[in-house]
Order: sequence, then C-alpha cells, then structure tokens
Amino acid sequence: MKEKVIGIIGGMGPEATASLFIEIIKATPVQCDQDHYRIIVDNNPKIPDRTAAIFGMGNSPVPLMRLTAQNLDKLCVHVAGIPCITAHYFIDEIRTVVSYKILSALEELNKYISENYSKSSSIGVLCTSGTIKTGLFNRYLLGKKIIYPCKKTQDDKVMEAIYGANGIKKGNTSKYPRELLIDAGTELIGNGAMLIIGGCTELPLVIKDGDFNIPFLNPISILAKALVNYKVSNYII
Amino acid sequence: MKEKVIGIIGGMGPEATASLFIEIIKATPVQCDQDHYRIIVDNNPKIPDRTAAIFGMGNSPVPLMRLTAQNLDKLCVHVAGIPCITAHYFIDEIRTVVSYKILSALEELNKYISENYSKSSSIGVLCTSGTIKTGLFNRYLLGKKIIYPCKKTQDDKVMEAIYGANGIKKGNTSKYPRELLIDAGTELIGNGAMLIIGGCTELPLVIKDGDFNIPFLNPISILAKALVNYKVSNYII
Repeated sequence: MKEKVIGIIGGMGPEATASLFIEIIKATPVQCDQDHYRIIVDNNPKIPDRTAAIFGMGNSPVPLMRLTAQNLDKLCVHVAGIPCITAHYFIDEIRTVVSYKILSALEELNKYISENYSKSSSIGVLCTSGTIKTGLFNRYLLGKKIIYPCKKTQDDKVMEAIYGANGIKKGNTSKYPRELLIDAGTELIGNGAMLIIGGCTELPLVIKDGDFNIPFLNPISILAKALVNYKVSNYII
Repeated sequence: MKEKVIGIIGGMGPEATASLFIEIIKATPVQCDQDHYRIIVDNNPKIPDRTAAIFGMGNSPVPLMRLTAQNLDKLCVHVAGIPCITAHYFIDEIRTVVSYKILSALEELNKYISENYSKSSSIGVLCTSGTIKTGLFNRYLLGKKIIYPCKKTQDDKVMEAIYGANGIKKGNTSKYPRELLIDAGTELIGNGAMLIIGGCTELPLVIKDGDFNIPFLNPISILAKALVNYKVSNYII
C-alpha cells in the first residue's frame, strides 16, 4: 500500500505551522527517519488576517486559503490540517475545493474531550479576544459550558501575555507571560472549569499540561495525533 | 514584483527539516505574519540513508531526492535548501533536474567563514563519523585546516552524545550529551581550532554560540540566512 502523505495548509502563522509540523513528527512512532510520514507544507503567510476578515475589517482569506490547499492536492496529499484555530471559521469553504480530507482541529478536540473527559461539563478557554468573538469553541464543543476569563483578566492578562510589549508574540517566553496566563487559568478554575484549552498557538510555548491542577489541552497537538492516526483506505496501490 | 518562494528539500531528517524551517522564520525581518516568506516543504523521510549509500551499503538516495526536489518545482519555488549536511554529497546530481537554485549549506558556510573569519585558518568540526568519512568539510572549506576529535573522543564522546542510549537522537537534550560535546570541542580548541562547526543538525539542540571561548557556527542557520537574503531577479511579474 502507498504511504500516507500528510499536508499542512500553513502560514497562519509560520510559527504555528512549525509547531504542527513538530507535533506530527513527535506523534509518529518510529525506529528510524524512514518510518516518518511524508509531510507537505505550503506555508503561505500572505493569506490575509482571519480575525480582521471575520469582523468585516479586512479581505477574505478564502481565495488564498483555497489556492494553498489546492497546491497540496498537486503533490498528492491524503489528509491535511490547518494550524490556526481562527482559520477554522472558513474550513467548509476550503474542504469543497480539494480531493483530500481536511481534519478540523476543533472537531478533533471535541472528539478527544468526548472520549477522554466526557464528564468535564465546563471547559475553560484561554485564547485571543478575536477568537472568543468568533464563537468557534462554543460552536464546536457541543453540549459543554464554555468559560472565558472576565473582560479585565482577558485584556490585562491573556492579551497582555500574547500581544504585550513583553508578550509571547514579541519572542518573550519567560516567566512574565507565563505567570499572567497561570493567573487567568486559575480564575477559570475558580469559575468551575474542569479542563483548560490553550486556544491560541502561542500559549503552549509557555504553558504545559501539569501547570494547573486540571488538564491543559493543546488543540494543535490533538490535531497532529489525529493526522498521524488517520487511516487512508480509499486510494489505489 | 512577485514574492520569493523558498523551498526545503526535506525529510533528511524531519527534525532537521523543522529546524531549517524555524531558522528561516527567525531570520526573516517582519512586522506581521504577512511579511514572512512563503515556504514550501516536501518532507520526504523515505529518502534512503545518505551515509550508508556513500559507503556502498545502501540504495542511492538520488532518485527520491530528485523527485522531492522536482515536487518543489511544481509549486514554483525560486530557491531551496537541503537540511542535511551528508546529503550535500549528492547536490550536483539534484541541481541538474530542477529549474530553481539550490543553495548549498557547505558553500554558504565557506562564504560565511571567508567573510567573517578569514583569519581562522584551523577549523574544528563536530559531526558524525559518517560525515567525517565523506570528506565534505575538507572539500568545501577551501584552504582551511580541518580538525576532528581523535578517534577515542569521536567514538566515546561525539557519537555517544548523538547516538548513545542517552543521546540526542533518543530525545535527550540534557546536560549529559551537552557535556560530552563540550569536552570534544575543548579538545579541538587544544589542538588549535579557531572556530567550531556544529556539523550535525543534532548539535545545536544542546550547544550554542558562546559555549566555547571561540565561535560556534551552525551551518543550518547560515543556510537559512542565505535563503532569506537570496535575491530573485530572473522571473516575470
């Protein structure tokens, strides 16, 4: 049987693309290099900002996301993922133009929680204010109560940790953004969260499972495992 | 003008491919995601082992390296790199089958040393025993005296740090492999080395510039900078 080829519809952003790539490598059981899956990446950072587009303040990313996804079809990818949570807002418009399967990080996250944490009815989410407004976690985590930090914590701690002058997007992965996020997560736990999702690709750079007394899930890592475990059956030798 | 598209002829191995990808991102001056270069990666770990092939103990990697490189042509790459020093043994056989420029990590390293360390006549190299035997550093670092560790240090320290039961290839990037490599580097300095090259992609995971009292160069990082600085002029708008 031909080997599975995994695609990454990337560039949103480049660091998140590298992170999904590395998570796929780590999730693959191997004895030597040759046991790894073939991975095709189109890292296209020219795709317009997704959050701006969702709120009517920028060009639609759909045309360039489609072109990027179609490039992977040219190199015979069997299954692919998108390493940007916010971009999942547009996933159905991308799925219709390619012949391979695009796994959704949010659908896989929902499946993972149902299978492993079915009793966790209240789920805390740490993500950008833009992602909160898209309502994506509420749409995909079916039957769960989604808890975000209060507005002040979201602005002063979560957004400060991600976008602040000493934040993660400025390359700072030290104690400062970490402690802000630990504070915000602790508030979520106080409000009843039974697990916390790192809903922004920057978060797992400073926070990991074990930092809270409840589980911390990284959707990109769950997507990587789903891509590795995806069974390809519908192609010819 | 159309934007430059950078390619990675990858999979040799996957971690080194991720490392070159990240080095390109880090070397690109940006204000926002959209300023990054488009990067196409064909991470093809099915390419046969290069060292085995060079010593007549395995299949040639050239046919699969060529197919991988040609895939990047299909997605209109302008310039590409190979994140495996040993694979450079075959670079001329790959360059002839693609329409874009393939930069050599070894040629760029030679250029970098000539421009920045022209007075360093003796160069220490830490790399696998397989790479030493290929003679690649001697072939490309023109007019320089190349110094390797003595056989015992190479076997007990360098190879142990990379391939040992607690080595870097087993996922251990702790003090143990680091100290072995510091010892080996110190021997090179004692034998007259004026700079040290991390000639194996695993090394910069535990050693960085500043760890020795002479410069430590990472060829993958130098290749990334060369890809970012490469001027594309020969294409139409």
